[in-house]
Amino acid sequence: MFQQQLQALTTKLSKQGVKVTCAESCTGGLLAANLTRLPGSSDWFDVGFITYSNDAKKQLLDVKQETLRHYGAVSEEVAREMALGALIRCKSHYSLSITGIAGPDGGTEDKPVGLVWFGLASKQRIWAESRQFNGDRDQVRAQAVQFAIQFLASKLDD
Amino acid sequence: MFQQQLQALTTKLSKQGVKVTCAESCTGGLLAANLTRLPGSSDWFDVGFITYSNDAKKQLLDVKQETLRHYGAVSEEVAREMALGALIRCKSHYSLSITGIAGPDGGTEDKPVGLVWFGLASKQRIWAESRQFNGDRDQVRAQAVQFAIQFLASKLDD
Repeated sequence: MFQQQLQALTTKLSKQGVKVTCAESCTGGLLAANLTRLPGSSDWFDVGFITYSNDAKKQLLDVKQETLRHYGAVSEEVAREMALGALIRCKSHYSLSITGIAGPDGGTEDKPVGLVWFGLASKQRIWAESRQFNGDRDQVRAQAVQFAIQFLASKLDD
Repeated sequence: MFQQQLQALTTKLSKQGVKVTCAESCTGGLLAANLTRLPGSSDWFDVGFITYSNDAKKQLLDVKQETLRHYGAVSEEVAREMALGALIRCKSHYSLSITGIAGPDGGTEDKPVGLVWFGLASKQRIWAESRQFNGDRDQVRAQAVQFAIQFLASKLDD
């Protein structure tokens, strides 16, 4: 099913002639690896950023130190700034960001393991959504990638 | 077996306190996704670059236009410049680059589908190696990731 979603997304992106970038934290490249899995992805994918640390988020994506300190790396605000930073840096039409707690460590009462925030920036606006996933590290990362792809597909014009 | 190699590499990197970055073209994030698969990878992984297009290689990694034009994106020289560019950009101890032809299209007589160049930069030197892999797009990408991890492991001090 996931393969079909990816194929549908790829077809739509090629047809619309739009470019996509991504900025990943907890998925560590897994979103980009999936986006580039199908032949022809170079038509709509040029660049991806893997910003695992806070410093990387600041340096590569212009996420603000105050945002990281005040809201934490796993937050709506950071997801929004990551998506916007990536969009601006590489002049794509859409930019997807993922920041979450893949586990097994790093969870808190407020932000448990499996919490993932997603950002999606276009030239018009930025959307953000969060999901709470269950499962181990691999499962959380896989579900995050799947949701990100659905998130992008849902915002593309038909 | 691959999982064991990855675990051994992770343990070595954590023990040595060194940081690794990567710069990927044809693998499109799959190397970083594997490097960050195990818990604790944030100890030694901060940043990764996915530079799928020539423009991305120039913009993010300072690969020279002349190098791309003269040698082509899939070449020893570009692999070296990608590795060095990533190392300088993010101040890691080691930087791994991958540039190749995952297929099914893009192959030529001189550079067939499955040809992949790897770069590995440290503060002391840059190594480069190529491999000719068989199989489909997924298989070429998976073998490239596996080789890159072996390549890094072989250059780390024991």
